[in-house]
Amino acid sequence: MREIRLFCPASVANVSCGFDVLGFCLDPIGDEMIIRKTDKPGIKIIKIEGEDLSLETNKNVAGIAGLAFLKEYPSKNGFEIEIYKGIKAGSGIGSSAASSAGAVFGINELLGKPFTNNELIKFAMKGEEFASGALHADNLAPVLLGGFTLVRSIEPLDIIRLPFPKKLFASIIHPKIELKTSDSRSVLKEKVTLKKAIQQSANLAALISGLYTDNYDLISRSLVDVLIEPYRSALIPSFNELKDSAKKNGALGSGISGSGPSMFSLSKGRKTALLVANKMGNILKPLGVDFNTYVSKVNPIGIKIISSK
Amino acid sequence: MREIRLFCPASVANVSCGFDVLGFCLDPIGDEMIIRKTDKPGIKIIKIEGEDLSLETNKNVAGIAGLAFLKEYPSKNGFEIEIYKGIKAGSGIGSSAASSAGAVFGINELLGKPFTNNELIKFAMKGEEFASGALHADNLAPVLLGGFTLVRSIEPLDIIRLPFPKKLFASIIHPKIELKTSDSRSVLKEKVTLKKAIQQSANLAALISGLYTDNYDLISRSLVDVLIEPYRSALIPSFNELKDSAKKNGALGSGISGSGPSMFSLSKGRKTALLVANKMGNILKPLGVDFNTYVSKVNPIGIKIISSK
Repeated sequence: MREIRLFCPASVANVSCGFDVLGFCLDPIGDEMIIRKTDKPGIKIIKIEGEDLSLETNKNVAGIAGLAFLKEYPSKNGFEIEIYKGIKAGSGIGSSAASSAGAVFGINELLGKPFTNNELIKFAMKGEEFASGALHADNLAPVLLGGFTLVRSIEPLDIIRLPFPKKLFASIIHPKIELKTSDSRSVLKEKVTLKKAIQQSANLAALISGLYTDNYDLISRSLVDVLIEPYRSALIPSFNELKDSAKKNGALGSGISGSGPSMFSLSKGRKTALLVANKMGNILKPLGVDFNTYVSKVNPIGIKIISSK
Repeated sequence: MREIRLFCPASVANVSCGFDVLGFCLDPIGDEMIIRKTDKPGIKIIKIEGEDLSLETNKNVAGIAGLAFLKEYPSKNGFEIEIYKGIKAGSGIGSSAASSAGAVFGINELLGKPFTNNELIKFAMKGEEFASGALHADNLAPVLLGGFTLVRSIEPLDIIRLPFPKKLFASIIHPKIELKTSDSRSVLKEKVTLKKAIQQSANLAALISGLYTDNYDLISRSLVDVLIEPYRSALIPSFNELKDSAKKNGALGSGISGSGPSMFSLSKGRKTALLVANKMGNILKPLGVDFNTYVSKVNPIGIKIISSK
């Protein structure tokens, strides 16, 4: 195999009470990447379409992730990467994770799969670190493993793939505003009350239970974030109205996707998820805020090979 | 039915990363209670053996829990209660929960079961409130429902019964020292770092996943308490040595049971659990600290009817 074409899906991290640890993979939204094996060692990013991102290997998350892979698994070959961005950078649905994951997944395939997808996460995390300044895997894990994933620990890396009800659909609304990572971070408190910490962990534990038992009601009751949302939601236009609308129209619950500005809602069934997305759009329209909406089942597979030769 | 004799089991709450929300039921350790229907309204505690506890209805957790039941479900009958304590008060394995649960369970049976066991928790919580000053259900839920339970929320009460691997055994060591609730509380910090709160919730989520999937390794990796144990463990003699010994002898993990001074360990299989209990005992013996040890499977049933007439 000399060349592989991939679909690298978007993902939702910071799933409500699962801040920093829970993520899930989306389906129809994503980037395409072509990775090509060459005879010249190293990684070269030869084309990026759809976003204005650096072609310099060590200034691009895909390049950085790929280099981390090759550092642990040196090859006489090199790799050319083409990136066709379908995910907007800074939208909060795992743009950098898709590119980081795609690079290491593609190189791994072209080298005969020396690593499992789970093992690839640690290389891709180097890309995430470049993008956000911190090692995190909560977008990468669902992209590389599919479905819902829990990051129990980063050091050592311990990822658990979770089951989920088959009728679980996500509605995403991406208000096209710029939300600086530094702002998303600076509103967070370094300390929280023990009481709220316990409340958050009880909701996450109950959400996990709901995912294992296909209990939509329990999932709905558990989608409560008392630690982060009260602060970050202020950075998203009409957050409370959007959240109320989603609930009113049948969503199980909503939250900030990643560090925003996108919001996710989870619903039982595509029909409800479509309604939820439409109604949320109706709230942003009169405000003059440009936005995109997406509806997606939870993607059980993650990253996909479109073609190879 | 005029009279019922019950076995009211001990339980472990504050299960490591599940502080305040996770509990499980023990098997061979517990109180016995006799509840007798009489013609004189009200509740009378006529006998307590094994512990020096108040016979006054409104100064005894069983009496208080029973009164809470009768307040919502008035009866022309009254109830006599005899309590044979097998659980030491203040040992940290749910002494007050056993008595509170027993009272409401027995009255419910004698009145033809107007409530489910889950519904009885809210009455029994009044007993717990009297004993500890706070409404909590993390011991009551496993006593009344059996197995492992998660308290997602107290207000409204939302309890989830969790599955668990069938070979899961607990070793309990109860060092017979007095540990004042006020001391157990005063060492806790009102605020914790967001980072540790997330770490704790990730471990709890992973523990829940391990319980659903019979994954002993994951259960073992997840039994980590970064919020409470670092402070409370100082109140328990040789805590770290006991914990290290348990791990060395094959336990999956250990923690403080309730607010101490008892410690629990979880192991795969009775044989390991027995070894763990013995070896922990060997650590306390030379210190001159009197102690009890118990080994128990996780009790899947909870409170049991011994006989009725």
